[in-house]
Order: sequence, then structure tokens, then C-alpha cells
Amino acid sequence: MAQQQGGGNETKGIATRAEDYSQWYLDIVKRAELAEHSAVRGCMVIRPQGYAIWEKLQRELDDRFKATGHVNAYFPLFIPLSFLAKEEQHAAGFAKECAVVTHHRLKSLDGKVQVDPESKLEEPLVVRPTSETIIWNQYKNWIQSYRDLPLLINQWANVCRWEMRTRLFLRTAEFLWQEGHTAHATEAEAREETLRMLGVYADVAEHVMAMPVVQGAKSEGERFPGAVESLCIEAMMQDGKALQAGTSHFLGQNFAKASEVQFLSKEGKLEYPYATSWGVSTRLMGALIMTHSDDAGLICPPKLAPIHAVVVPIYRKDDEKAKVLEEAGKVCAELRAKGLAVKLDDRDLHPGAKYYEWEMKGVPLRIEIGPKDLEKGSLCLVRRFAIEQEGESEAEQRKRKKSFVARAEALASVPALMDEMQAQLLERARNLRARRTRVLDSLAEFEAWFKGEDDGGFAWVHWAGGRAEEEQMAERFKTSIRCIPLEGQYPAGAEGPGTCLLTGKPSARRVVMAKAY
Amino acid sequence: MAQQQGGGNETKGIATRAEDYSQWYLDIVKRAELAEHSAVRGCMVIRPQGYAIWEKLQRELDDRFKATGHVNAYFPLFIPLSFLAKEEQHAAGFAKECAVVTHHRLKSLDGKVQVDPESKLEEPLVVRPTSETIIWNQYKNWIQSYRDLPLLINQWANVCRWEMRTRLFLRTAEFLWQEGHTAHATEAEAREETLRMLGVYADVAEHVMAMPVVQGAKSEGERFPGAVESLCIEAMMQDGKALQAGTSHFLGQNFAKASEVQFLSKEGKLEYPYATSWGVSTRLMGALIMTHSDDAGLICPPKLAPIHAVVVPIYRKDDEKAKVLEEAGKVCAELRAKGLAVKLDDRDLHPGAKYYEWEMKGVPLRIEIGPKDLEKGSLCLVRRFAIEQEGESEAEQRKRKKSFVARAEALASVPALMDEMQAQLLERARNLRARRTRVLDSLAEFEAWFKGEDDGGFAWVHWAGGRAEEEQMAERFKTSIRCIPLEGQYPAGAEGPGTCLLTGKPSARRVVMAKAY
Repeated sequence: MAQQQGGGNETKGIATRAEDYSQWYLDIVKRAELAEHSAVRGCMVIRPQGYAIWEKLQRELDDRFKATGHVNAYFPLFIPLSFLAKEEQHAAGFAKECAVVTHHRLKSLDGKVQVDPESKLEEPLVVRPTSETIIWNQYKNWIQSYRDLPLLINQWANVCRWEMRTRLFLRTAEFLWQEGHTAHATEAEAREETLRMLGVYADVAEHVMAMPVVQGAKSEGERFPGAVESLCIEAMMQDGKALQAGTSHFLGQNFAKASEVQFLSKEGKLEYPYATSWGVSTRLMGALIMTHSDDAGLICPPKLAPIHAVVVPIYRKDDEKAKVLEEAGKVCAELRAKGLAVKLDDRDLHPGAKYYEWEMKGVPLRIEIGPKDLEKGSLCLVRRFAIEQEGESEAEQRKRKKSFVARAEALASVPALMDEMQAQLLERARNLRARRTRVLDSLAEFEAWFKGEDDGGFAWVHWAGGRAEEEQMAERFKTSIRCIPLEGQYPAGAEGPGTCLLTGKPSARRVVMAKAY
Repeated sequence: MAQQQGGGNETKGIATRAEDYSQWYLDIVKRAELAEHSAVRGCMVIRPQGYAIWEKLQRELDDRFKATGHVNAYFPLFIPLSFLAKEEQHAAGFAKECAVVTHHRLKSLDGKVQVDPESKLEEPLVVRPTSETIIWNQYKNWIQSYRDLPLLINQWANVCRWEMRTRLFLRTAEFLWQEGHTAHATEAEAREETLRMLGVYADVAEHVMAMPVVQGAKSEGERFPGAVESLCIEAMMQDGKALQAGTSHFLGQNFAKASEVQFLSKEGKLEYPYATSWGVSTRLMGALIMTHSDDAGLICPPKLAPIHAVVVPIYRKDDEKAKVLEEAGKVCAELRAKGLAVKLDDRDLHPGAKYYEWEMKGVPLRIEIGPKDLEKGSLCLVRRFAIEQEGESEAEQRKRKKSFVARAEALASVPALMDEMQAQLLERARNLRARRTRVLDSLAEFEAWFKGEDDGGFAWVHWAGGRAEEEQMAERFKTSIRCIPLEGQYPAGAEGPGTCLLTGKPSARRVVMAKAY
């Protein structure tokens, strides 16, 4: 069966990362059937294979939101134009990418269906790009006293930002997300909430997605429109670029004031509550793909894999078929009894075609069962990946992924194997990040790295510039401040104060600079 | 504590069903904090209490969709106007209630945020009222061969129908739903799927929502625009009116043809696949409320209750408080260990206020724990409802809802009590429906019932009229054909052929006529 496992990448229909990283990403999204473009400019279709991963991710997030005291609710898709305009910075931030509903009826004119001009709305409605303004308008009814606080609400929804340059999962005109919107009696509580939810995101990124992240604050120029402070988690993709994977904002009293929401404090005074908002979106799917996948297709961490193992029966003759299928069915049942999601692929296709397909789709484990395995009482386990070892050939690695194990032992080993693969993916991603992380002190070193052959990586540099200097760096190197890391996020040797690499001014702490998605 | 349990309905802030059924419904929705109006005309906010019930209902439905082989996916919110126009009847059916996006940018003009006239879209986009056209456009990429069939996909989404007269949950401009869209190689398979999913809906209605339904087909005038046949489940509300609770459509080849989707059959011929679509929405929340609730507030079947039991500690002195709270905490923990969702209400409020609130919110069981209960080693269990017995006074019924039970026995009894209450609600709803169901053979009887003091109920009548005659009935009695019931749905004495009560023509079977929501 060797011919089915090797082969150039042309046969897989995907570019290699080395050839064309950007095309590789799109090929994976397409060939693993995760998403595709629709007929509506910038709007994607999330295909069942992609949606199943998203559903698992949603469940992991939602469980954690509930465990931290949040409840779900649902607010309108539409926002009256005047609402969006209430918070000035907010309106300015989203004005350029709003889908606007202006009419509410169609009619047939000259045999053609058209917008009925007589159905024009008195006030245009914006399809929500985010829901602060419509939600805070509702909070006015719900918040009267300190007893009503904190108010801890999350919404799962679709939102719309009319992006001009779209990219499946990473930047689309419509995307799915969750947005938490909380109200608190004090600034300290709200700031604590902002941090707590950032921590939830970091936990899911690292321990569910197996994707290490740096937690930090955005610089002024990258702040959410209307926020006092924006926190974020930043992940590194395999090409060394950063991807903002989630944000948690401390909004101060800005939205409470814009919506005139006040509460009677314990002391009997009218006060404005403090707000937070926090969100992650289907963008995480893009991050997941780019963190782990290889030139053979998607690699999905076991905790998010809709299918943990696929069982492929192998036979040539009809009498073999019956026996092999019987054993395959038993193996599936036994694994399912352990709580694993198992697929029996008994389609009438050549086994090699099945191997390709399930590798492409990122199933962590393949179990091959043929007549010889029946004889020997063993199973052939093939892991989706093995951590690369230095100087190893492709053939050697392939061998390391495959093992023939006595049946009982093999079945017993699968749950632990899933845990092991989950841990290995995180370790591998951490190693990749470490290899592309540098603590830099001079602009010359910075320039050499980011203007070199690759796209650099995470540069931990001292910074004391303002928005103008940030723009200067962006122009010269296409880099931006990804975040000003929180305490505890600094790698060894990167802590403490220093001197800004651009301006030479004193800097209290390093920031992370990188090219970004 | 008697004063907290009786009281006129003014104190509860809700109308009684006898006084004003319609206001009673709105009062429950408001006071149980299930939903409320938003600032956007016709769009509702689903509040956390309501959304938690919806989430449980979603889970029940989704599990059944997956168990019947369906997968979830996500398609765009927007539909190009030309797509909607592809299927003529479909376009005509939805044209009058479409929110239309015509621009994609805002700008500040004279210091005021406005729609940027230069951002006009080349083709207007309709916010999906349903997704057949956009989904079938995508299916063109996915269906080439009979091997690609059946395609069994469901979507959870928000949709928009610009209704002029809205009513929370029952009819809103935006609502949440699921829409299944399947493609099949043969008509027989597609028809079987239509029936299968109707069966899933009926199962959830009866065994999760405790709401009996009649399964049947819609008459021509009530068919989904573009469908060959529309099946539905019809439930009876406490005022005797019908509520369409779910629909499952056999779409024939209409949408395949409109979107030019063809597949190569086993025999090597190009054929159009057959389609179904099926959906239920947040309308079910309205049905749930109107099926079970009473003049004290919401009644929620245990299978959908976000909280199964609320524990209310009762104490006067501080030394009592500590002991009672300790016991209350233990009771909660022991119930949670049985898989129940339990709320400890230790707020600093008078117990009576708590009783009112949790009754209003429909929690199936209240457990009161006071110093005397501690002494006796017992618990006071108060069920949210008891099935009415003839000639019973309100005080007697109240007494029947309350029981003092030895601690261990009480805790052990709760899971079975939940099952019992679930069964009783279905039984009560079935009894109500039976009381308001009549098999009628003359127009005079029909008129007497529907023009009488109440709103009639389900009239099983012979019918051989066409659309004109249906409209005549609607004008005279405000009734419509709710459905032409499937075999097996007929009550005893209603089977077989007969004579149309309006036209006197022969009729093969009875239909259900009723006033409807």
C-alpha cells in the first residue's frame, strides 16, 4: 500500500507551505471541505466538516462562559442608524463597513422583481457589525439598582463587516461569533471581568485548540472603537505571522453614557455602570488550520475533532470482506463505548483513496483492518502526524506514525493516544513559536529579520513611540504592535525596562511586534 | 406564609386567562422575563430566561437531527435579489416581507452619520426570509453524482420576515430557527424524509414540550411558496386556537430546476434531485407558554426547564440562618449529584417574594427549608402545579401541591417527580384538546360553535371545497383548514369518507378546521 501514502503534492491538489503558504491555506480550506465562497461577495459558506469543528469549539467556550456565571440571550440583527451614531468613536470605527437595510418590500415591475421604492424605511437599519449600542439600549430597562449588577450576558450571533479584501474564515463580510456584554457597579470589577474573559480565551486557545497565545493589551491605534482598553490574545501561525485570536475590552462608562444607563448605588447615588465586551469568531477556524496543518491537509487537535478515528477495512476477496467488516464493526463499537467518535468507512473505494481523504480532513487516527490483522489478532494504527525529528527522512517519519499492536492493547491505548496527540500539538506549536521568537534591541537586527527571506516572527522589542511611529514601522516593515504583554507573559530575558528601538526613549517594558493577518 | 401564596392577580401584574387571554400571554412573556420588544420595529430581544429554554429545545432537536443522519452547516445571511426571483411562486410568497440591503457604507455628512449614497450595491441583497435559493445555488457545487446523495443538511440561523403585525415569539420581523435542506435521488426518498422530519417534530412537541399535535398536510392555499406539498404539526392553545408549530415540505424538483442542479444517476442519466425543507422556530416558545402556563405565570415542562428546583431557605434569627443555609447548600449538592439543575435562592428578600418570582418563571419544584424542617428532618416540597380536580377549591388545590416529606425520601423522589410532572402536563394538554375537539357534520353546528362565546376549537369536518370556499369560511368564521391529517391521526369516530359541510360534495376524509395564531 506504499504507493498510497507517499506521492507528490500535486496528487493531493494542495500547494505546499514552502511553495505558497497563502495558497496552501486556501487549498486546505477547500480540500478538507471546511468552507467555500458563496455567490454573495465576501460571504462564506461553512461546510459541514468545518461547522462540526466550530460546534465543538462553541461548546467548549459556552461551557466556560456558563461556569463563570454568564447567561446567553439574543438581541436584534438590526441597529437603527441613530444608535450606532451615539458613541462617536464607535460609529467612526464601523461606518466604512456597514451593510445597510433601507427598504422592506419587493415588488414585480415590468415582470421583474425589484425593490419597492415605496417601502423605504424612515430610518435606515445597519446589520450589526457588533452589538454594544443595541444591547446597551436594552440594558436601560434592566439596570436600575446595584442589585441588578453585575449583568453578565453573552450572545451567539452572526455579524456583518463589509470588508473589501476577504479571506475564508480570516476576514469575511459575514461571520459567526459570540459577543459578551457585561455591566458592573465598579471599574475594578469590570477590569477584573475583562481579564477573566481574556483568560478563558487563552485557556481555550491553549488547552482545546493546542495553540499557544500571548496575552496583552492593544496599543492605542489598535483599540476597539469606543473602548478604554482592549486586551487580546495573539497566536503565531506557521509562517511566523501573528493572528489576533480574541479580544476582551474594558469599555469604561462610554456606552452607559451614550445610552443613558444609570443605576442607584448602595449609597443611594445615581451612577453609570462600567462595561466590558469580549468576542471570538469563526476566525479561530483559520487560526486552527494555520497552526497545525501540514502539506497533507488539515490536522485537527483531538479535542476538536468531529471524528477521532476512522476505521478502514481492507480486503480483496468477498469472503475476506465479510470477516473484515465484522471485525471493523466490532472495533468501532468498542471504541465508541469509550466515548470516542468513530467512523467506519465501508465505502466501495480503494483504501488509498480513503487514506488520502481522511488525512486531508484531519482525522487524528486511522485504523486499518485487513485479513492479516485478523489472523494475527492485531490492528494497524496510523497517527495523523508524528512530531518531526531532526534529520529524519519522510519515509522514516511515515514509519513512526504507523504501528501494529495487539488488538486489546490497541483499543485500550486510543484514549491516551488522543491525549498524547493533543499535548504534542501544543508542544509543537510552542516550539515553532520559540524558534521564531527573538528578543531584539536594535533597529538593524529588526530590519534584518523582517526584511529577510521569511516574514520574521514575534519580535520582543522596547517601544516608546506613539501612533505616528507605529505607522512608520508599518510602512517600513509591515509590522505592527501585536500587544503590550501582560505581566507573566514575558519569556526569560525579555522582562524589565529598556530603550525604545526606534526613538531611543526609555521604555518600561517590551512589546510584541510582528507582521499580522 | 399563607398571605404570600394566595392573593388576587393584580399583585402578580398579569391578566388572568379568563379576563383577557391575549394580554395574559404578553404579561407572562414580560413578567417571566422571556422576551421583550426592542427599539427596532418588530424585532424582539430574547432574554436569558427565555433563551435558556430555547437552548434546551435546540439541543433536543439537534440531537434528533444528528441521530437521523443530518449534519449542520452555515450559509450566507444575504440572498441576491436575482436568486430569490428564480423560483416564481417562492419569490411571490416572500416579496412583501423582505428586509433589503442596498448600501454598504456610512459617512459623516454635515456632522451627521448617514448612508453613503456612493456605496450603493449593484444588486440589492435580501436578508434571508428562508434559504432554499441560496442553499440550492451552493448545492450545485456539491451534487454531481448519485454518490453525493442524499445530502442531509441543517442550518441554525436567524431569518427575517417583515411582518406588519408582530407578537412576541409568535410573529416577529426577525426570529431564530433551524432549516433543514435535503436533496435526494428519488421522489420516494424525498417524500420519506419529509415524513421522517415531521415525525421528529411531533416527537419533540409531544415528549419534550408535552404538547400534543395533529400531523397533517396543508391545503393548497396554505402551502409553502414553491413546495409541492407542505406537512405540518398543529397544536391547540388553551383558548382553543390552533398554532402551526412546525412544517416539513416536499419541494419536488422545483428548486433543483431553478438552480440548475443535476446529478448523474446510477444509470448514467442526468437528473434533477428531489428536495425537502423543514423548520421550527422560536415560535415554539410561544406555543410552549400558551399550552401550559396558568394565571400565576409560566409553567415549563421539566425536560425544558433551565432550573428544575429552587431551594428557598426560611429563617428569622441569625443563628437560624447559618443552620438553614448549611442544610440548603447540602440539599442543592445532593440534588445536583442526581443530575438536576438546582438554584439556591439565598438573596436577602422575603420568602414570599421569592415564591412569586419562581412561580412566575415556571420552575417545576420549590423546596422550602426552615428551622422546623431541620428539627423534623423533613423538607417542604411545593410543585409548580397540580392537575385540576373537578369541584376543587383553589385552597384545596394549593394544599395538594405542597407536601412535607422525610428528607431522604424527599430527595430520592425528585427525579421521579420530574417525570411525573412531565407526563401530567402532556395528559392535561391532551385532555384540554379533547374537551375542545368536535367531530361536526353540519354548517349549523360549526357556526354555533365558532360564533359562540368562545373561539371554538378543533373541528373535524368533511371538506371538498377549493380555495374560494376556504376564503369564504375564513370570512364567515375566521377559521382555516389547519391540516388534512395523516392516516393514524384521526380520533375514533372521525375516520372514513363523508359529505362536505359547506358544498355537500363527497369528501374522502375529514380535515381539521380551527381559528389560528
